[in-house]
Amino acid sequence: MDSFGDHEFVTNHNISSNTTNPLDPEEFRRQGHMIIDFIADYYKNIENYPVLSQVEPGYLRKSLPKSAPFHPEPIETILNDVQDHIIPGITHWQSPNHFAYFPSSGSVAGFVGEMLATGFNVVGFNWMSSPAATELECIVMDWLGEMLSLPESFLFSGKGGGVLQGTTCEAVLCTLVAARDRVLHKIGVDKIGKLVVYCSDQTHCALKKASQIAGIHTENFRVLRTTKSSSFSMSPDILRQAIRNDIERGLIPMYVMATIGTTSTTAVDPLAPLCRIAKEYGMWVHVDAAYAGSLCICPEFRHFIDGVEDADSFSFNAHKWFFTTLDCCCLWVKKPSSLIKSLSTNPEYLRNKATDSNKVVDYKDWQIALSRRFRALKLWLVLRSYGVERLRELLRYHVELAKAFQNLLEGDKRFEIMVPRNFSTVCFRISPSSVESSTVDDQNKSENNKEKGLLERTNEVNAKLMDAINATGRVWMTHAVVGGIFALRFAVGTTLTEEPHVVAAWDVIKEHADDILNAYR
Amino acid sequence: MDSFGDHEFVTNHNISSNTTNPLDPEEFRRQGHMIIDFIADYYKNIENYPVLSQVEPGYLRKSLPKSAPFHPEPIETILNDVQDHIIPGITHWQSPNHFAYFPSSGSVAGFVGEMLATGFNVVGFNWMSSPAATELECIVMDWLGEMLSLPESFLFSGKGGGVLQGTTCEAVLCTLVAARDRVLHKIGVDKIGKLVVYCSDQTHCALKKASQIAGIHTENFRVLRTTKSSSFSMSPDILRQAIRNDIERGLIPMYVMATIGTTSTTAVDPLAPLCRIAKEYGMWVHVDAAYAGSLCICPEFRHFIDGVEDADSFSFNAHKWFFTTLDCCCLWVKKPSSLIKSLSTNPEYLRNKATDSNKVVDYKDWQIALSRRFRALKLWLVLRSYGVERLRELLRYHVELAKAFQNLLEGDKRFEIMVPRNFSTVCFRISPSSVESSTVDDQNKSENNKEKGLLERTNEVNAKLMDAINATGRVWMTHAVVGGIFALRFAVGTTLTEEPHVVAAWDVIKEHADDILNAYR
Repeated sequence: MDSFGDHEFVTNHNISSNTTNPLDPEEFRRQGHMIIDFIADYYKNIENYPVLSQVEPGYLRKSLPKSAPFHPEPIETILNDVQDHIIPGITHWQSPNHFAYFPSSGSVAGFVGEMLATGFNVVGFNWMSSPAATELECIVMDWLGEMLSLPESFLFSGKGGGVLQGTTCEAVLCTLVAARDRVLHKIGVDKIGKLVVYCSDQTHCALKKASQIAGIHTENFRVLRTTKSSSFSMSPDILRQAIRNDIERGLIPMYVMATIGTTSTTAVDPLAPLCRIAKEYGMWVHVDAAYAGSLCICPEFRHFIDGVEDADSFSFNAHKWFFTTLDCCCLWVKKPSSLIKSLSTNPEYLRNKATDSNKVVDYKDWQIALSRRFRALKLWLVLRSYGVERLRELLRYHVELAKAFQNLLEGDKRFEIMVPRNFSTVCFRISPSSVESSTVDDQNKSENNKEKGLLERTNEVNAKLMDAINATGRVWMTHAVVGGIFALRFAVGTTLTEEPHVVAAWDVIKEHADDILNAYR
Repeated sequence: MDSFGDHEFVTNHNISSNTTNPLDPEEFRRQGHMIIDFIADYYKNIENYPVLSQVEPGYLRKSLPKSAPFHPEPIETILNDVQDHIIPGITHWQSPNHFAYFPSSGSVAGFVGEMLATGFNVVGFNWMSSPAATELECIVMDWLGEMLSLPESFLFSGKGGGVLQGTTCEAVLCTLVAARDRVLHKIGVDKIGKLVVYCSDQTHCALKKASQIAGIHTENFRVLRTTKSSSFSMSPDILRQAIRNDIERGLIPMYVMATIGTTSTTAVDPLAPLCRIAKEYGMWVHVDAAYAGSLCICPEFRHFIDGVEDADSFSFNAHKWFFTTLDCCCLWVKKPSSLIKSLSTNPEYLRNKATDSNKVVDYKDWQIALSRRFRALKLWLVLRSYGVERLRELLRYHVELAKAFQNLLEGDKRFEIMVPRNFSTVCFRISPSSVESSTVDDQNKSENNKEKGLLERTNEVNAKLMDAINATGRVWMTHAVVGGIFALRFAVGTTLTEEPHVVAAWDVIKEHADDILNAYR
């Protein structure tokens, strides 16, 4: 029986009087410091782990109990298990020897920002639920838009605005739904089966997925062919022809996504002509600069997004190559009202004076979910901790490293660069002539290999090279297949990567190229 | 000019040789420890801040620079700004005096798990990209499913499976799209305009939003009426009648969402009869237990989800009332293949041997986005750090606190409980008779108030009470309007909340009820 002032009542299970509150500040402090050291040590020793996890499917069930524990376990035991059972199953995206896909570039500032957001743990669906979360987001999105020299029309000052989404997939889905509803509002909701979405065969699968979710008919999803001769960029002529064909068939062109830095080869679609065509037909243009967008804060690289002023929306992932931890996709739109029309819901239980005043942004209406984390903090921390100048230097340094890698490749006759390098990613392979010369004179050449064409054999050799490299655990790279050609991708941008790592990676590649070419008969 | 082994090349901007790497382990350690103390102190002093932020729209732009800084700024400066400019704009969801909406219950374990995930910063889209991320998620979802006594058919062992989504909105959208495509696959994609979605007028707006995104016609979104007599739960009879009407009109019933613990009054929809009806018509049933689901790990509360065995999917938010930081929505489905059919994309650049072997789960095909954070870590940390027994005790304690609050209310004749309390949320108001007696005898009663009906006046008084309470900064509560009645909601579940906070909140409520009833003439 507790007694406070005039009141007497019983709570039978007063946990707090017997045990520590799960958010006790001193226990928080104790465990927090322990984890900081754990993670700092992890970064210090990260090169001791194989970059690509070498475990087999199902490895973890064998090590963990069948059920959750009934009694509490101490943090020390759990951390031992993280070390013994989780870390072996981790593919180390923070390793300086990570050159796969695109980077997931963490930083001290990004981490600190995420910690603050997690600590405050606010649910910032609308302005009122934590004004700082909304206002800081508006401010950093304007800052960042200015750094990218986005036209005023994308900034809050110019009646546009930016919003932090989780990933590009969400950004694309939101803009696609806004574009869809803008058209359906005019022609009637029953015409959804007539809407056509355009992209190239190099566009990220996010658009396909978003189209599926938004109910765009699969047969109205146009994948335009690209070719090596135009470095796999989208052809305005092919787009125009496709649009004309669709209109002739009674369909309605609705949305096109242009990419600055495609996933496979970092190709750049020509924004200006694509936007011009889209405008003629009243289509929405989204610019996906997921990976390469960050580099456009450097004046000498800004030209890659020239033409963005005629697009409807633009996004890039600060969690890829901008030192901000996953997830942090930056999306700007010219007409926030388009998003809001499609995505807003205003139930009574969320009504509040600030919203009713129309003086505030309620970001719940700019995204798929209602609840949202305070992501702006980590981006703000990154912008302030490093500043514009140093961020430019860091990105330029990665481009320099990629150039250096390219120089090494070009000095070795066995390799060829697949496409001109635009950013910090190099696509290359062992050349067909190297494969040819390693097999053509061999008396013991197998029947199998005689029958295969040179392209197929070259692809096979390069796939083997990639697997061999990754099996060493010393580096991790991934591949692309473009125009039927298997290429290895060397993507620089992981924060810890420095010159010696690039050199060491090149040594691994050379070594295994020797072995594979010698063994391939 | 650097030289490594045989190689010589120049990188002009070798940041690392001049300045600290942005992920330098020792700088990480230094700043990390600083932030831990900052957040620990924040929790220690959290009651000194007004729970609901008292800033005005636009407050932050006045304090921050117009542009991002050109030069780096030290963490000490930034933290000062967090203290001076961000914290005043924060509505403190971790405050023990937070009783608004539903809780956002953080914990040391949840925080530590989020830190580990942020530290590893893996992009776990498929198994191969970090096997531990996928495998731990499968394991904890089975653990948690077992704790909830979900039928085997929702667990991996029973050919179902669980997945962590960001929020309920995403979980609902994924299941809705899966349900949509299951039907359209049979009847043809051009029939999307015939699909009907059902919910009650108490269902969370997540479903409306998901329906908009998925292209369900607005006029086919059925909002079924609930009444006070059935405590605002969905009526199976009304559902059946609505389905019959729609079928008569040539429409196709497709999806119904049942709620366990609605947002306004924590009503419970009757799962068993609703599932029975849905089954008859081949509809998908999703069970949204966003808030109340966690409590069902206590055997005495498990009955609230009886009938779930006949649903197709079930979700609850571990970030609401389960000590796991935002975002962490737990979704189980009986047929993962339904999700995968709608949400998978398999571009060449993501091909890998593990996926091709069909021995692994690739969670990218279970959700909207491709990239995903390692959310399973925080849930694993929570389950292990507290264990089943203590988690039950913690939840029961919150229910006890809500009961205690209800007792206090019931001892004060001026108030009435709006609906029977099911969980840890109490809906109440100053009763119409109290409003009546405070105004009826007053000679100076204004013309305005004479004209208003009693319901309207009672709503007005209660809205004033809520605003007055929140303006004190000592507690934060939100409201609901159900059946035309404005009610205050007192939701217990914030981790730091203990008995004295409930008593103090009651004091604030009483005090302001006195003032308002006296002033209301």
